Amino acid sequence: MRHFTNVHDLGDLKAAVKEALEVKSNRFAYKHLGQDKTLMMIFFNSSLRTRLSTQKAAMNLGMNVIVLDVNQGAWKLETERGVVMDGDKPEHLLEAIPVMGCYCDVIGVRSFARFESKSDDYEEKILNQFIRYSGRPVFSMEAATRHPLQSFADLITIEEHKKTEHPKVVLTWAPHPKALPQAVPNSFAEWINQTDYEFVITHPEGYELAPQFVGNAHVEYDQRRAFEGADFIYAKNWAAYADPHYGQVISTDRAWTVDSEKMALTNNAFFMHCLPVRRNMIVSDDVIESPQSLVIPEAANREISAQVVLKRILESL
Amino acid sequence: MRHFTNVHDLGDLKAAVKEALEVKSNRFAYKHLGQDKTLMMIFFNSSLRTRLSTQKAAMNLGMNVIVLDVNQGAWKLETERGVVMDGDKPEHLLEAIPVMGCYCDVIGVRSFARFESKSDDYEEKILNQFIRYSGRPVFSMEAATRHPLQSFADLITIEEHKKTEHPKVVLTWAPHPKALPQAVPNSFAEWINQTDYEFVITHPEGYELAPQFVGNAHVEYDQRRAFEGADFIYAKNWAAYADPHYGQVISTDRAWTVDSEKMALTNNAFFMHCLPVRRNMIVSDDVIESPQSLVIPEAANREISAQVVLKRILESL
Amino acid sequence: MRHFTNVHDLGDLKAAVKEALEVKSNRFAYKHLGQDKTLMMIFFNSSLRTRLSTQKAAMNLGMNVIVLDVNQGAWKLETERGVVMDGDKPEHLLEAIPVMGCYCDVIGVRSFARFESKSDDYEEKILNQFIRYSGRPVFSMEAATRHPLQSFADLITIEEHKKTEHPKVVLTWAPHPKALPQAVPNSFAEWINQTDYEFVITHPEGYELAPQFVGNAHVEYDQRRAFEGADFIYAKNWAAYADPHYGQVISTDRAWTVDSEKMALTNNAFFMHCLPVRRNMIVSDDVIESPQSLVIPEAANREISAQVVLKRILESL
Repeated sequence: MRHFTNVHDLGDLKAAVKEALEVKSNRFAYKHLGQDKTLMMIFFNSSLRTRLSTQKAAMNLGMNVIVLDVNQGAWKLETERGVVMDGDKPEHLLEAIPVMGCYCDVIGVRSFARFESKSDDYEEKILNQFIRYSGRPVFSMEAATRHPLQSFADLITIEEHKKTEHPKVVLTWAPHPKALPQAVPNSFAEWINQTDYEFVITHPEGYELAPQFVGNAHVEYDQRRAFEGADFIYAKNWAAYADPHYGQVISTDRAWTVDSEKMALTNNAFFMHCLPVRRNMIVSDDVIESPQSLVIPEAANREISAQVVLKRILESL
Repeated sequence: MRHFTNVHDLGDLKAAVKEALEVKSNRFAYKHLGQDKTLMMIFFNSSLRTRLSTQKAAMNLGMNVIVLDVNQGAWKLETERGVVMDGDKPEHLLEAIPVMGCYCDVIGVRSFARFESKSDDYEEKILNQFIRYSGRPVFSMEAATRHPLQSFADLITIEEHKKTEHPKVVLTWAPHPKALPQAVPNSFAEWINQTDYEFVITHPEGYELAPQFVGNAHVEYDQRRAFEGADFIYAKNWAAYADPHYGQVISTDRAWTVDSEKMALTNNAFFMHCLPVRRNMIVSDDVIESPQSLVIPEAANREISAQVVLKRILESL
Repeated sequence: MRHFTNVHDLGDLKAAVKEALEVKSNRFAYKHLGQDKTLMMIFFNSSLRTRLSTQKAAMNLGMNVIVLDVNQGAWKLETERGVVMDGDKPEHLLEAIPVMGCYCDVIGVRSFARFESKSDDYEEKILNQFIRYSGRPVFSMEAATRHPLQSFADLITIEEHKKTEHPKVVLTWAPHPKALPQAVPNSFAEWINQTDYEFVITHPEGYELAPQFVGNAHVEYDQRRAFEGADFIYAKNWAAYADPHYGQVISTDRAWTVDSEKMALTNNAFFMHCLPVRRNMIVSDDVIESPQSLVIPEAANREISAQVVLKRILESL
């Protein structure tokens, strides 16, 4: 595997989960793979879990790690050719990206949707320029439209906890005060669509995800009906995708908050969320603190998903 | 030793100092202990000496180190249950702390007194939540009420330089333009009270430390009398502890600055300060630059105190 | 070699380039040298290439690395003795520097010209205080008047690409909207003056560099005439050195931008720049993207120049 930006890069998912569980049982078995190899983690946006778990995964593999925080406002990269650079952007990405590639063996990039241009976001302009110009294997640490390390960790977590072969998995929108990217729900849908689970997406009207991510999922606008018989409830907020409201908050209806009354409709479902989570907006205190809450094991599996991805990239160098 | 937050966690101090001197003479003798172990250093407040010395100590022990700077204002953690998190705090500590624990083996935390609530500060609300929820050994890199890595380094420094078995050690308040926590003087007093030194604390009226830290020390309001015959002068500013002035500057009297005239009253005492120090407020240029000044050896011993603490935690894993 | 601040510290340049090419062909051959050694990189100014390439070089040598970003405005160091430190500067450099030296084996410092005082800048006040007070080998990661790691990388790059024994090398000023230090052109001139190349410096009147750096170079105010027959064009902006305009922008004349029409005057010259570069101010898109552009190989050689410097310092410990 050279680059890792979506579910298809990983190939057979059952084999990937099997490899993840092997790595999890012996994290230091592949320390020789990363010897004299350097990972550069480039953050255009802030990060807690991804920063820590990916760094840990790389160290498990014996890699050196360099972390570069590109302050969101401060380091402005010019992206257009032909511009006279006499303004506030001191460097062009056509130089910055190959230079960063000079000093490492593998590059991780975090670059969120900016909600300024739907086409810029959905064409993954920044991530693709790293792939094109860095000369190095590149993996997504959450890009504009997908968060594949999160989705892989989610899949591992479901596989570890499922009680039936084909569990019912429900992705539910929940309210939030700010406009959040669609990367996590897009990516979750993309991954679950590659499994043989029963998959339902529920959200208020107007919050439809892009069709290429919805795929074969059943979309249900009645959250309670969606929850009936569910084995896993995956909650997440996202801003609207459909025009003319792209990137906007069009509802903060707290009737969509996941609470114990709604969880009672499920098949004693596990609760999942990628974190950070706003309590009593997305989910009630009692649900997130219940024995069925998987938010911490899910976060712990971020180390494992990152390690499998790095391991496969190192093996292909 | 699992956690390290105060003098009592270290057990017999003579044994601890002996171990420190052994570590100091051969810093890399325990490199195997930290193999495949990760230290996470979490800073809620800025740091120079603690950041550098603890990182060095961990590397001496062969550990991997991840440093997380929690920008003081930016990353606001909700601490109360039941709150609807629709404001400026995007994550609850009940998720953040166990997640941080997922990706490491040992956690160091710096979290100063905020002077907003005396009980929150003196109950060590933040530090104790890390101990309770992280699932990992936790050590203080200066908490609200104590700075035990500093005090341990101070003790090592005194033991290295003392010329009599039971030296007279004087902790003196000195002026400073801003309100500083009591962590360093509290902790110094807590440690010196565990030795067989003669211990005097001197400060203007109104600057009394909490009784549980003063312990059996002799409190002397006349600084000159306190200095008579002293072997070690330990200078530090702190804000008032006693109500109704908790956390306030109630004097900036430069008559309390440590200068060579006052040092002449001592038994050719060594001068100590934890740094950073404001010259000519806390201490005059000539005293801090004199051969009797121990401020640099004291700072150098921060690496040693941190290494003993990490070594003992690693040994107990 | 103990300290590295200018070309003379490196001794014989032909031997240094030879060593660089050996290191480049086998970067991990000296990993034992850095075992249990710690590099501290101290940045008073921001950095991309220097930060990444020096860290990579140190890791190639097996060193531990601690990076300390001294926020430009936030961490104010008092530099004068005798001051009553009751203002906004919480620490004196006379304490800060030896403390930083306590926790490492080698120190790298970046501290740009501030353009507040020509004598402070040209006396290298900050860098020299690190040399004097840290107790450690110190190397420049760009100081007020020189950027020797860049110049060494430039020299390696020229040696790798030159087609004649004594190439004609032209350092040309080019326009830029902001006032930039003279460190890069000063240092480039200092290094090229130590070679047997033909060396020409071209710039508008008023942009004369300090005579000690110009040395034996031929200064030509007509940029086109300077370019005739050149083998290497090294472009860079700098602010005026000569009084009364020290540190000021006295021209942004885009007639000095390097473009393909001017490059046609040369002997099919290579184009060089230290980066970051403002396109269509310093150089046109087509020149920097042409096969003759060496900006990326030049940046890649920053890892090599840093590794030779660190290797020599480690060998002398």
